[in-house]
Amino acid sequence: MKADLLIRHVHLATLADESGYGEVPDAALAVASGRIAWMGPERERPPGLQADREVDGHGGWLTPGLIDCHTHLVWAGSRAAEIERRWQGASYEEIARAGGGIVSTVSATRAASLDELVDAATPRLRALMREGVTTVEIKSGYGLDTETELRLLRAARRLGETHAVRVTTTFLGAHALPPEYRGRPEAYIEQVCSEMLPTAHQEGLVDAVDAYCEGIGFTPAQTRRVFDSARALGLPVKLHADQLSDLGGAALAAEFQALSADHIEYSSRESIAAMARAGTVAVLLPGAYYCLREQQLPDMQALRDHRVPIALSTDCNPGTSPCTSLLLMLHMGCTLFGLTPSEALAGVTRHAARALGLHHHTGRLATGLQADLALWAIDHPRDLACRFGFNPLAASWLAGRSVI
Amino acid sequence: MKADLLIRHVHLATLADESGYGEVPDAALAVASGRIAWMGPERERPPGLQADREVDGHGGWLTPGLIDCHTHLVWAGSRAAEIERRWQGASYEEIARAGGGIVSTVSATRAASLDELVDAATPRLRALMREGVTTVEIKSGYGLDTETELRLLRAARRLGETHAVRVTTTFLGAHALPPEYRGRPEAYIEQVCSEMLPTAHQEGLVDAVDAYCEGIGFTPAQTRRVFDSARALGLPVKLHADQLSDLGGAALAAEFQALSADHIEYSSRESIAAMARAGTVAVLLPGAYYCLREQQLPDMQALRDHRVPIALSTDCNPGTSPCTSLLLMLHMGCTLFGLTPSEALAGVTRHAARALGLHHHTGRLATGLQADLALWAIDHPRDLACRFGFNPLAASWLAGRSVI
Ligand SMILES: [Zn+2]
Ligand SMILES: [Zn+2]
Repeated sequence: MKADLLIRHVHLATLADESGYGEVPDAALAVASGRIAWMGPERERPPGLQADREVDGHGGWLTPGLIDCHTHLVWAGSRAAEIERRWQGASYEEIARAGGGIVSTVSATRAASLDELVDAATPRLRALMREGVTTVEIKSGYGLDTETELRLLRAARRLGETHAVRVTTTFLGAHALPPEYRGRPEAYIEQVCSEMLPTAHQEGLVDAVDAYCEGIGFTPAQTRRVFDSARALGLPVKLHADQLSDLGGAALAAEFQALSADHIEYSSRESIAAMARAGTVAVLLPGAYYCLREQQLPDMQALRDHRVPIALSTDCNPGTSPCTSLLLMLHMGCTLFGLTPSEALAGVTRHAARALGLHHHTGRLATGLQADLALWAIDHPRDLACRFGFNPLAASWLAGRSVI
Repeated sequence: MKADLLIRHVHLATLADESGYGEVPDAALAVASGRIAWMGPERERPPGLQADREVDGHGGWLTPGLIDCHTHLVWAGSRAAEIERRWQGASYEEIARAGGGIVSTVSATRAASLDELVDAATPRLRALMREGVTTVEIKSGYGLDTETELRLLRAARRLGETHAVRVTTTFLGAHALPPEYRGRPEAYIEQVCSEMLPTAHQEGLVDAVDAYCEGIGFTPAQTRRVFDSARALGLPVKLHADQLSDLGGAALAAEFQALSADHIEYSSRESIAAMARAGTVAVLLPGAYYCLREQQLPDMQALRDHRVPIALSTDCNPGTSPCTSLLLMLHMGCTLFGLTPSEALAGVTRHAARALGLHHHTGRLATGLQADLALWAIDHPRDLACRFGFNPLAASWLAGRSVI
């Protein structure tokens, strides 16, 4: 067998099934044509396995490349001054009166060119990549008009073309009601469904469709309209569901066989059971929970009882989770949500892949899958979750191409 | 005037007084003989100011180098498996029975050579330095016998000699009761005071003396004995005070004009008033608070009312704050403890310097002080606290020497 790359002197954490890390000590892994061609214990390595290039892993651990499956990575402007005012004691009303909140991001984003959006997002993307992230989902939702929503999705595609990272795009036109539609949410949803989404889809900019179903967002009925439109176009859906109250968002997502229902702090046991039946992934976002000082935890017992796959993500956004460390989300997932380290690691690999519909391509170490890999200078995979504010990445590969 | 280094095209955040960031836009800063020789607006730069080397700051912000004023950075072994077991549901008793807790770190540390201790701590120190930290305090306290406590302090000194970072050492022999002294805390304190501390001091290994005054640590009376010994040797003191209960630790620290009282979640208003009168700094440790899921907040109102200087630190340690990001502590200080971003930044610069008795040397940008500097690719100093899980460090200098 002829391989392009052979990584030796590593231990593997395959994350291949539900049993835990999937540890293979003293192992090697071979890549051919961008895919995992062979992997296993060093002593079982086929004698005929030749490689153009060998990498010495120095006894580190090789995991699937990490997947950040829920981000709002592309925006213009900064909300730091607003965050500072809030910490200085200003109320949400005072901030809104001063032009703060999501509206300020929408204004700045509408005023930004494609190049400016790409430039603003690049350091954030690079920060994720420096931690071994090889796949990132990026949502639109700061344009809220056709032109800007398309520009956001083009910026996301451009980032994927210019960086060694797999970008998937999610259309989130139904993120918030733009100021010009105040009092007319139905008219805005009509615009989303009849113009924004079809246009974006026609340009090939949409991998999935999302909405913000919440008291301060859109109703379940409005969300349903968006989902119906997505279904008509053959697009998979996801949902910001039950973050601040239980509107039955997770159950609605399940009804549409959503890839994922995200946040779900307030989702009922019944909604979670419906997610399980639909194969919908629970995407937990501890960064936003921490930033907002929320108290309501997702029903972890129900998620485990029903064996709902749990993913973790940064929710990187300018207001409620201005965070670009997916590793930190492992520690916060364990500390704040009670995940175990192996659940947390599965949450940024195999289950995060499923949340993007990519589980047949990446998120595990298995022969035939994309060679998306991260090599870590650690003693054990649990170390990725058991420490915080550190980055032991030694190297990473996207489809066998060296990234870091 | 002849300078070694001139940094241009920067804005300064001097942190020079209590008024906030101390912003000087469109500025420059000159270094001669390791000290800040001149600083100010570019337009006021003396025409005769010549420099051997110029650095273009590209419009970034220059702050004092960061100071991590409370760490237990040097230890051997790992507590990750224990942390994992705890997240899997094991009780503290089960973990203690399995040989976990601080005792396991003490065993591993006693078994480690000086070189091994230095090697183990190096990645942690480098992680701090990559975030612009130019001064680190390192405590002993995982040896709990004379030989190992001395080895820990030597490792700390060695780290300061082999890395471009200023290390200050703190003797923390009274960190926990070693197993061989079980039931005989007074005998151990006698050993600390009569042998360990004097020996370490004689070797020049001790910049300050600390103790862990707590129900699960040492009593105020035992702490007082340690402080009396420190005073007899002319050494300044610090204290782990009132973290889990109010034993009057902060007041005791104040009575001895301690450099700092650290944690102080349970300190009373009266104790805080005493700290203010003594000039004792409050060192807040949000990483441990977050890890332990504590609910009791330090009395921020009392700290502000009495104008106690507030510092922030990682408390980097293997059990309750395995954290090597001081920037993350800024965000957690604001999010969890209600600091403002400018208070948080002062907490890792001017006030952290005071907590180490170094406020006449570093921690601010002022003519004559050490040129310990950090250059950041940010729009405003508030960005250092308003985002998390990111690192915008562009460059750093220790006493004018380029570090990063
Ligand atoms: Zn989101
Ligand atoms: Zn400590």
